[in-house]
Parts: sequence; C-alpha cells; structure tokens
Amino acid sequence: MKKYYVLTPGPTPVPPEVAAKTSLPIIHHRTKEFEKIFTEVEEGLKEVFLTQHDIFIIASSGTGAMESAVVNLLSPGDKVLVASCGVFGNRWIKILESYGIKPITYCEEWGKEVSPEKIKDILLKNEDIKVVYTTHTETSTGTVNDIQSISKTIKENSNAILVVDAISGLGGQELRMDDWGVEVVVTGSQKGLMNAPGLAFVAVNERIWPVVEKASLPRFYFDWRQMKKMLSKKQTPFTPAVTLIIGVNEAIKRIKEEGIENLWRYYEKLSFATREAAKALGLEIFSSRPSAVVTAIKSPPTVDSTKLVHMLRDKYGISIADGQDVLKGKIFRIAHMGYINEFDIITCVSAVEKGLSELGYNVEYGKGVSAAESILFS
Amino acid sequence: MKKYYVLTPGPTPVPPEVAAKTSLPIIHHRTKEFEKIFTEVEEGLKEVFLTQHDIFIIASSGTGAMESAVVNLLSPGDKVLVASCGVFGNRWIKILESYGIKPITYCEEWGKEVSPEKIKDILLKNEDIKVVYTTHTETSTGTVNDIQSISKTIKENSNAILVVDAISGLGGQELRMDDWGVEVVVTGSQKGLMNAPGLAFVAVNERIWPVVEKASLPRFYFDWRQMKKMLSKKQTPFTPAVTLIIGVNEAIKRIKEEGIENLWRYYEKLSFATREAAKALGLEIFSSRPSAVVTAIKSPPTVDSTKLVHMLRDKYGISIADGQDVLKGKIFRIAHMGYINEFDIITCVSAVEKGLSELGYNVEYGKGVSAAESILFS
Repeated sequence: MKKYYVLTPGPTPVPPEVAAKTSLPIIHHRTKEFEKIFTEVEEGLKEVFLTQHDIFIIASSGTGAMESAVVNLLSPGDKVLVASCGVFGNRWIKILESYGIKPITYCEEWGKEVSPEKIKDILLKNEDIKVVYTTHTETSTGTVNDIQSISKTIKENSNAILVVDAISGLGGQELRMDDWGVEVVVTGSQKGLMNAPGLAFVAVNERIWPVVEKASLPRFYFDWRQMKKMLSKKQTPFTPAVTLIIGVNEAIKRIKEEGIENLWRYYEKLSFATREAAKALGLEIFSSRPSAVVTAIKSPPTVDSTKLVHMLRDKYGISIADGQDVLKGKIFRIAHMGYINEFDIITCVSAVEKGLSELGYNVEYGKGVSAAESILFS
Repeated sequence: MKKYYVLTPGPTPVPPEVAAKTSLPIIHHRTKEFEKIFTEVEEGLKEVFLTQHDIFIIASSGTGAMESAVVNLLSPGDKVLVASCGVFGNRWIKILESYGIKPITYCEEWGKEVSPEKIKDILLKNEDIKVVYTTHTETSTGTVNDIQSISKTIKENSNAILVVDAISGLGGQELRMDDWGVEVVVTGSQKGLMNAPGLAFVAVNERIWPVVEKASLPRFYFDWRQMKKMLSKKQTPFTPAVTLIIGVNEAIKRIKEEGIENLWRYYEKLSFATREAAKALGLEIFSSRPSAVVTAIKSPPTVDSTKLVHMLRDKYGISIADGQDVLKGKIFRIAHMGYINEFDIITCVSAVEKGLSELGYNVEYGKGVSAAESILFS
C-alpha cells in the first residue's frame, strides 16, 4: 500500500483543509470577497513575519521575490555585500551578477554560519555598502544564521539595508523582522506557510522607499512601487494567483491557532529529534549551527546519498533531499517545516534506517527511531 | 440562493475535475511522477499552441511572460515596434520603457484592429526593427488582430521576430503558431487553459536563440536560457507551481477531447450569440473586429457601465468586466473563454437585461436571451 510522504525542503505537505479551500470555485479578484481574503492574508502574514510593515504578494517562486529585492534597491555601480554559506546564499550573487552588480562576497565554509564579526570587518572597510544580502536558514546545508546579531552589527557599523532570504525559514524558525531591525524579508508559499508553491512574499520596512525611488535597475513585473500602489486597494498590479492566496489564508488560520512562537519551539523539537536519531545511527550532522527547519546529515562514507534518496523516493514513496552542488551524494536532508509532525519524523527515520541498511550500512533497526521518540515524547 | 458566475476575461471558471486534481496531496517536483505530468503538459500544450517548438512554464502571471519576451530578446538601443490597439498592447510599451527601450509605437484607435498594412509601412521605413510586439486578442476592447496577415507582412518585409501576447486568446481563438510563422507566443493559465491564475507559458521558435544569446538586457528569474536547459530534464529552473501544473494537465485532457479547432468554433458561436443578444437589446458592439473570447459592449449613454458591473457582481453574483482606462464606465465586457458554455451566456445576458432595466434602460425582458438562443440552439 504505497503512500507518499514529502519531507523535502519545499514543496512541503499541504494541510487537507488548505488544499480543499483552493479547489473551491474560483472567485474574481476585483471583488469584495477577494479583498476581504486579501486583507486577512495581509494581517495574518504580519503575525508570521512579526512586522507592522507592508507585505507584497507576488505570483512567482521565492527566487522572483529575491530578484525583486535586487532590482528595487540598486543602481549600477552600487556596492553591496553578500554573506553566503551555501547554495541559496550564492543565489544572491548570481542574481546580482545578472544585473551587472559585482557584490563583495563573503562566502563562509559550507556547514558553518556566516559570522557577524566578519560582516563587521567588511562593513568597516567599505563604508559605502548599501545593502547586505544574506540567508536566514540556508537550506542546502541545514544551517541557521544569527540574523539578530547580523542586523545589530549592521546597524552599529553602517547604514546598509539588510535583506534576508527567509524562504525556507519563515514560520519555522525564530525571525523577528521589526524587533531585529531587518529591512526586507522574502519568503515563499511552499514551506512554513504550508501551501503549494507558486507564491512569493516580500515584507519591506518603509525605510527602504527613498532607496527604491533612487534605484535605477530596470523592473516591471517585480516593481515594488506598483505593488505598494495597489496594496492600499487590497490588490496586486497583475492578476493574483487567487487560489494560492486563498490557501495561504487558510494556512495562516492554523498558524495563528498554534501561535508562531509555539511553532518555532515545535520545529526545534522535531529538528532535535532528527539530529539525535541520526547520531544514534552513528551519523554526523553536517552543520555546526543546525536549523530548526531542515536537518542535513552526512551520508556514511560507504553510502552514496543520491542512491539513498532515490531508493526512499522510488521504493518507499518518501521524498527527502540529496545534497546540492558539491554536496550531492555526500549528505541527505530531512525537512521539518510547515505541515510536518512527530510521526512524519518517526516515519522518515524509520525509512532511513531501512534504506541505509539496504545500501549496506550497518543499522540496528529501531535505534534511530528510539532516539527520536525519547525527544519527541518527553 | 446566491451563486457565483465568473464571466470575466480572467480569472475564468475552473472545471471541477481540474480543481479537484489540484487539491490532491502535493508531490515533489524532482520525481518521476512529476516529470511524467510535466511531459504530458508539454506535449499537450504543443497541441494548443500548434507548435513543435519549446514551451516554457513559468510561475508568474501572464505579464511576467511578456516581460520575459522583452529581456531575452533585446539589448539597449535595439529598435522594436509595438503594434497596439488597447490596454494590453500598451503594456508592451510600458515593459519596454521600464528596460530603457524606446519602441516605435503604432497605436491604433481602440476598438479597431492593428493594420498589417500600417505595420508594413513602418517596417519598410525602419529596416533594422528587430522585434515586433503585438496582441492576439486585445482584452480591453474585445478585438482580435489578424496575426496571420501580420506575420506574413513581417516575413515579406523584414527579418523581425514576431512576439504575440495571446494571454486571453490562446485556446479560444484561432492561432497557429508554426503555420503562421509566429516566433514567440505568450499566454497565462487562467483563460483558455481553464485554470486558476499563477502560471504563464512562452512558446519559442528555435530561430530566436541566436538573438537570445546576444541580448544583453539583464534577467535571472525570466531567463529563457535557464528554462531551456532545465526543459530537457522536464524541470524548471526554480520550484514550479506544482499544483497549478497538475491542473493544466487535467484541463488539457479536456481540450484534447473537444479538439482545439472545435473549441475555436464553439467560442465563435458563443461570441456571435453574445453580440446578437446585445444588438437585440439595442446596444452596440465596441469593436469593429470582435474577438471570439471577449465581447465588449457599449453601455447605453444613460447607463454607467461601472454601476452595471458592480450591481451584477454585488447583487446577483455575476462577475463581468467594466471598461478599462478611458473606457471605464463606457463599455462592459463579457468573456466566453475557457470553461464557459451556452447556458453561462444565457445567464449572463439575462442578468444584463435585469441590470440594465434596474438602471433605467428600457429593456424588453427576454429579447436578448431570445436572440442568443436563436444562435446557440441552431
């Protein structure tokens, strides 16, 4: 009886009541009904982003929202810093370079967090850095960066705007946009927000507007000025992805019921259990500062993680993620974000035990699961 | 017993079996299951676009796909022509100007089609025009352009690439990409493709690739080169809008069952019936070359069409569209694209009779409906 389990860092499972809502007959977006939903989503998102500022909803993947944070803030020749510790941090570099911006790059060793101290050093040597781009939870390595300290360091040592890619982290791991003074936070629909992919979100502190007005990089679809103009009418500049927005509204209800801080603690527990399970199986955690939303585990030297991931997917219906880039075949990643609970973790650990065993690794069945249970059920 | 009827030019109603499929548990996109669906969608779309060429699927609204046809084809200083006859034709101008391209603009009077002859004159005076941007069915005026003749004219008089915005027309009105020699066609998910909004599609003739390689406008999210690279793996560069793509697959099955040419004839009949109904009520059709997918009707001088549209929406649950821009308050627009049938038209005409009457226009009840029936049931 094959069932499918998605424990990848996006897409993540969608709660059935969310999926059901998105399959109701479509409504037109220029209606009071939609504007009511849009307003609820807007208010609800503020409780997830922990901001009082504007949040834009874009029909695109998260990368589109990242691109919007490049084209709306910069002009040719601007000096910016990218603080990266993995594939998604490096995406900032690629986007910037596509627009002819040559960023100062601080690329931390993969598996480590970016260091606020090193950012400070760079800022002090480059007073004219206009924007710092970094990542909340780096999905490729399962690492969480200390955004609070990074933001504090930036505030103390420069006038730079901080832009944070929180695509995989928002809703799953502590991020307090306003309290921490983060100016721009971007995310997607298919992770902590428990929806199907296809929507991106950008929260912007009003401090950015003078910068946006002066920024001369070209933009049309991703133009925040148009989004801001339409936001007051509870609309988007172009046809919104109506059903996905309705889904977000439903998911936000659930997030509010649970309470965002309770959810952070919950995912922290799931991640702790996942790490303990891995260790009980004799495996190592890849990151020195593991995130609450995705756990990256080193594959045993004798096991190609690509094979493990494909076997779990094709034979047992369980989707986890392989390593990316140079980590392909070396690590595997289990996500515990969005609509994931303790029994999903048990199922996944159990499947990993079976998969590793089939690939010749010496597994004492139940050892990982026991370790996970002892955390989850305590 | 209030029910909702959507007869706007996007979003359009989604067939229940399509909506149901999109609410099934999410699957991961890096799986054989998804790649199978992606392949089916790709093959199916070719039968709708009538092309053998590549079709890219983008998570964005249709405007994103339009922008992609600017940034992937042009470099600063390139000479291009926009042939526009309404709001959506003018969108090409706005996108181009956002990227610093000053197009030659041929703006036809709204309600008329763009003239292949006038395009010819401009091409002959400007041998170095690189791309011609135009619109298949101009949604704002309910006009269909003669893309076949436009394409023929371009081929005979220049080397320009023809880019057609077929967002509202594809699947609803004859458009033969390969036979007519159109190089680029863009569309969205929420019209002829009978899906929720959130997906855009771009079909590209391989002739464009040398141009794309030389084009220096900046792009990342909308970069066709990355899309092309991933297409061979049945993947997209960034997380695809999985559920919407699954929906498209389901809708395409329906389109294939009906047959694309039969659908064109069907919408032609619906549009003819709508026009005859309007005339029977003493109203005038706005366009001199009406499209099969949306009918623009002049509001009687005594009736503000904005009021009519709001009343039908708020009092009777029927969404039709007001005029846009300078046509706001002057015309109303009824869409007959995608999942719309003859009884939707009857319902809509009936509601228009009631609404006009309530707003003081002299209506003989049933006259519009009778005229529509005599076309629809013959």
